[in-house]
Amino acid sequence: MKLRRCIPLLQWAPGYNKAQATGDLVAAVIVTVMLIPQSLAYALLAGLPAHVGLYASILPLMLYALFGTSRTLSVGPVAVVSLMTAAALAPLAQAGTAEYLAGAVLLAVMSGLMLTVMGILKLGFLANFLSHPVISGFISASGLVIAASQLKHLLGVEANGQNLLQICHSLLGSIHQINLPTLAIGTGALLFLLWSRSCLKPLLGGLGLAPGFADLLTKTAPILAVLVTTLLAWLFNLQEQGVRLVGHVPSGLPTFTMPQLNAGLWSQLAVSALLISVVGFVESVSVGQTLAAKRRQRIDPDQELIGLGAANLGSGLSGGMPVTGGFSRSVVNFDAGAQTPAAGAYAAVGIALATLFLTPAIAWLPQATLAATIIVAVLTLIDLPALLRTCRYARSDFGAMLATILLTLLHSVEAGIIAGVGLSIGLFLYRTSRPHCAVVGRVPGTEHFRNVLRHEVELCPKVTFLRVDESLYFANARFLEETVMDLVTREPELTDLVLVCPAVNLVDASALESLEAINERLRDAGVRLHFSEIKGPVMDRLKRTELLDHLGGQVFLSTFSAWQALTGHGKLP
Amino acid sequence: MKLRRCIPLLQWAPGYNKAQATGDLVAAVIVTVMLIPQSLAYALLAGLPAHVGLYASILPLMLYALFGTSRTLSVGPVAVVSLMTAAALAPLAQAGTAEYLAGAVLLAVMSGLMLTVMGILKLGFLANFLSHPVISGFISASGLVIAASQLKHLLGVEANGQNLLQICHSLLGSIHQINLPTLAIGTGALLFLLWSRSCLKPLLGGLGLAPGFADLLTKTAPILAVLVTTLLAWLFNLQEQGVRLVGHVPSGLPTFTMPQLNAGLWSQLAVSALLISVVGFVESVSVGQTLAAKRRQRIDPDQELIGLGAANLGSGLSGGMPVTGGFSRSVVNFDAGAQTPAAGAYAAVGIALATLFLTPAIAWLPQATLAATIIVAVLTLIDLPALLRTCRYARSDFGAMLATILLTLLHSVEAGIIAGVGLSIGLFLYRTSRPHCAVVGRVPGTEHFRNVLRHEVELCPKVTFLRVDESLYFANARFLEETVMDLVTREPELTDLVLVCPAVNLVDASALESLEAINERLRDAGVRLHFSEIKGPVMDRLKRTELLDHLGGQVFLSTFSAWQALTGHGKLP
Repeated sequence: MKLRRCIPLLQWAPGYNKAQATGDLVAAVIVTVMLIPQSLAYALLAGLPAHVGLYASILPLMLYALFGTSRTLSVGPVAVVSLMTAAALAPLAQAGTAEYLAGAVLLAVMSGLMLTVMGILKLGFLANFLSHPVISGFISASGLVIAASQLKHLLGVEANGQNLLQICHSLLGSIHQINLPTLAIGTGALLFLLWSRSCLKPLLGGLGLAPGFADLLTKTAPILAVLVTTLLAWLFNLQEQGVRLVGHVPSGLPTFTMPQLNAGLWSQLAVSALLISVVGFVESVSVGQTLAAKRRQRIDPDQELIGLGAANLGSGLSGGMPVTGGFSRSVVNFDAGAQTPAAGAYAAVGIALATLFLTPAIAWLPQATLAATIIVAVLTLIDLPALLRTCRYARSDFGAMLATILLTLLHSVEAGIIAGVGLSIGLFLYRTSRPHCAVVGRVPGTEHFRNVLRHEVELCPKVTFLRVDESLYFANARFLEETVMDLVTREPELTDLVLVCPAVNLVDASALESLEAINERLRDAGVRLHFSEIKGPVMDRLKRTELLDHLGGQVFLSTFSAWQALTGHGKLP
Repeated sequence: MKLRRCIPLLQWAPGYNKAQATGDLVAAVIVTVMLIPQSLAYALLAGLPAHVGLYASILPLMLYALFGTSRTLSVGPVAVVSLMTAAALAPLAQAGTAEYLAGAVLLAVMSGLMLTVMGILKLGFLANFLSHPVISGFISASGLVIAASQLKHLLGVEANGQNLLQICHSLLGSIHQINLPTLAIGTGALLFLLWSRSCLKPLLGGLGLAPGFADLLTKTAPILAVLVTTLLAWLFNLQEQGVRLVGHVPSGLPTFTMPQLNAGLWSQLAVSALLISVVGFVESVSVGQTLAAKRRQRIDPDQELIGLGAANLGSGLSGGMPVTGGFSRSVVNFDAGAQTPAAGAYAAVGIALATLFLTPAIAWLPQATLAATIIVAVLTLIDLPALLRTCRYARSDFGAMLATILLTLLHSVEAGIIAGVGLSIGLFLYRTSRPHCAVVGRVPGTEHFRNVLRHEVELCPKVTFLRVDESLYFANARFLEETVMDLVTREPELTDLVLVCPAVNLVDASALESLEAINERLRDAGVRLHFSEIKGPVMDRLKRTELLDHLGGQVFLSTFSAWQALTGHGKLP
C-alpha cells in the first residue's frame, strides 16, 4: 500500500492495456514534435547551449513517469522556470561559460533535492503562500520580460538585461547592428506562427479535418517553422550572412554529470533554487489538478513534490537544467489522448532519438526561429483579464499582484515574487488583526441577535452584547482589548458585557492573556465579563485555564439565555 | 479637538488642581529616589557611563508628560531595552569608547524617529505581531542574561558576552581574579535587597506603618543600599582595594548632542533600533493599559508611539540612551498617587537636581551595588508560571516561546525576538492553512445540521454537505480544492455538493479562483456545486464576479432549504 503510494507507477502499470498504450503512443509522438523546438528554445532562453534543453527532456520525463501522480503532465523545460534560471545565474557567470552551465546543473540538483525533501516532510502546503494573484501577476510579467529578452535574437543584435528597463536600454544601444537576414527569418517565423495560431485551425477544419485533430496539428506548427528555416539556413549557408545558428550540438545521449560541491555556490543559489522549486511546483500542480479533475482522477501534491524532485535531480545529474510540468504541452498531451505517465516516458524516447540522430540538422537551425517560438508561446502567459478581474474584486489582492508585476518588470523576477508573497501575507495578517466587531441587540420578540447598526433591535443600557467575527489570536488580541475598553469608557452606566463568540474558531495564548486582562480591567471598572456561544473545542481549551475561575460573570450557552438572565426580561411572546 | 488629541497635556492641564498636584509631587519624590540608582545601573548595563542614565531621565520624562497619554507611566531607562542597546552596540565598538556612546545616542534618536513615524502613520498595530508568549519568553530570558551579565561586577572581574554561554565561559576564565572587597560589598547589597523585598514590608507593618506606605518604603530600599555602600567606599577609600566605583561624573545638566549622520552606521543599527522601538512600545503600552484601566481611563496606542518617540528623540539629543515605560517604576508611581503626567515632569526635576548636586557623591558609588540592584530588579522579570501555563494551554504558542527563550539565552536577544515573531506568524498561517472542514448531516426532525463524526445525523448518498470553519484565503484555497476533490473521488455516486459557509468571513481572490476551479472540476466530474449560508458582505463581493453565473448549482439562504430542494424530502414533522 505504502509502496504503491510512493511509486505511483505500481498503481497503473499492472492494468496497462493495449488501448492505453495506443493513446499514450499517439500523444507521445505529438508531444515529442512539440518538445524538440521548445526544449532547444528554453535552453537558449536560460542562456544555455541548446542541447541542454534536450538533455533535460529525457531522464526527467522517465523519472516523473515513475514517481509522479499526474497521468498527463508533460514535464520538461518551461519558459518561466528557464527565465528564473537565467536570472539566478546572471550574477554568477557569463552565459555560455562552463561555470554558467555548471550553475544550471547545480540549480537543477538543488531544486530536485529541495522538492524531494519537501515531499518527504509533506511541506507541499508551503506552496499555498504563493497566492493566485501573485502567481498570475508573476507569470504575466515574466511573459513580458521573456518576450522582450528574445527581441535581440529576432534582430540579430547583442543585448542583455534582467528586467524590461535594462533590456530596452541594451536593445536601443545596439539597434544599429541589426542583421537583416536574421530579421527576415525571425519575423517570417513569427508571422507564420501567429498566423497558424489564429487561422490554421479553421483552415484545416475547412479542409475536412476533425476539429480535435486540426487543433493538434496546429500545435505542431513550430516544428514546421523549424524545418523550413533550418533548410533555408543550410541551402543558403545563412551563417555567412551573419545569421546566428544553434551550431554544433554534441551527438549522443547525455552522460552522468557530477554537480559542483562548493558550499559558497550552494548558499549563493539557495534562494533561487527555492523560488524555482516553489514556482515550478505551483505551476505544475495547478495544471495537473485541472487535467486530473476532467477524468475524476486525483493527484497527490506531496507525492508530486517527489515526482518533480526526482525529475529535477535526474535533469541535473544528466547535465540538464531545472524542469517542471508545462501548461501548454500538458494540455496537448491530454487532448492527444495520453492515458498514463507512460506517454511521458515514450516522449523521452523520442527526444533521445532526436539527440542521437538529429543533432547534425539542429546545428543549422537559426536562433531567430527559436526566439519566434518563444515569443509566441509566452504571449499566452500574459493574462490581462485576470488583472482586471482581481482589481475589480479586491484591492488588497490587486495590491499584491501589482507589486509583483512592477518589481518583476522593473527589477527582477526574484524580487517580484518575494515582494508578492511578503505583501500578501502582510495584508492578510493586517486584515485579521482588525476583525469585524459588532454590538448586537435582540430582534424584538425573537431569540435572534443582530448588529445594532444594520437592524432595528432592542438594547439594554446596562448590558452590552459584543460579537467578534474572527478567531482571537495574537495579532488581534490587543485590538480586542482596545475595542472593549473603548466601549466601557464610552458607556459609564455599563455593568455587564457579554462577548458573543460563535465565529471564534481559536483562542491562542495571547488572546487568552488579553481576555484575562480584559476581565481584570473590567472588574476594576465595575463591569462583569460574560461569554456566550463559545464553540466546543474552544471551550475544551478554556476549561484547562484559570480564566473561567477568575471570570467576573458567567458563560452562557446561548446569547438569548444571557439576555434573559442579565436584563431580567425577554420572555418569548 | 485634534490639537487636544495630539498634545494630551491640553486635556488635563486646564483642570489641574491642588489635590492632583499633591499626589503628583509625593509620587515624584518616591519615583526620583527609585530612579537615581536605576538610571545609573541601567546605563552601566548598557555599557555606558553612569551619567548617561541620568541624562536619559530628564528631558524624556518632560517630553512624555507633554505627548504621552498614560497618566501614570514612568518613562526612563529600563532593563530589557538597556540590554538590547548593549547587544546592538557590541559589534560596533568597545564599551566605554566615544564611538560606543555615539552609537547609543544614535540608537535613541533612530528609535525616537521610528516610533514617531509609526505613530503618525498609525502603525501601532505592528506591535501586535509580538505575541504574548514571545514577549513573555523574551523578557524572562533577557532577565536571566542580564543577571548573568552583572555577576562580573559582583565578583570584581572582567567578563564579556552577548549570551549565557559566552558570559559563563568568560566568567570561568577570569574567576581567579575575584576581588574580595567588591564581592563583600556586592553580596552585602544583594542580600540586603533580597531581604528587604521579602521581610522589610512585614517588619514596617509590624512597626505600625500603613501597608501601602510600608510597601512604598520597601521600594526605596535600593537608595539605602546606595547610600551605605557609597559612604563605605568613601570612608575606607575602597577604590584602592580594587573596588570599582562609578568614578568621575560630569556635573551639570546635559547639553544638546548632535547625532552622527553616517549612512552606514544608520543602516547597521536600523534593525536593532526597530526591535528596541517595538519591544519598548509593547512593554510600555501593556503597563500603561493595565494601570489606566484601574481608573477607567484610556490610553491611545498611536499617540503613545508619539509620546515614546518624543521621549527617545529627547533622550538622544540630550546625550542619553533609549528609554521606555518601565513596569516596576510605573506601578510605584501609580500606587504613590500620581494623578497626571506632571508627576513624571516633577521626577525629571528631581533627577536634574541630582545631576547638578549629587555627582560628587555618585562618583564614590561602587559598581557592585548597582549590579546588585539590577539583579534583584530583573529576577522579577523571570516568569516561570507563564512558561508552564503556555505549555499546558497550546503547543504552538509554547513552541514559539521556547524558540525565543533558547535563542535569546544561547545566541542573542535580537535572534531570539526575530525567531519568535517569525515562528508565531508561521504557525498561525499554518494553522489557518488547514481549516477545520466537516461533512454535516441533518439532525433528524430539525432544521439543524451537525458534524457526521460527532452526531447521529441523516445523510443522503447523492448530496454531501461540507462545512468550512475558516475564512477562505490563499493559504487554504488549495487545501479546499484538495478536500473537495478527495471527497468527490471517494464518493462515486455523488451528484450534488453543498458548501456550508456560515464561518466564512472572507473569500479572497485566490479562494475565488479556487472556487471557480472547484466548480469547473466538479462539473467535469458530473457534480453540481451549491452554496448555503453565505454571509452578507461575502455575498456582496461574490455578486461582482462571474462565479455565480458559472455555478453548476444554486445559492441557498439556509442549509435546510438546500436539503429540502436537493434531497426531495425533509418536511418538518
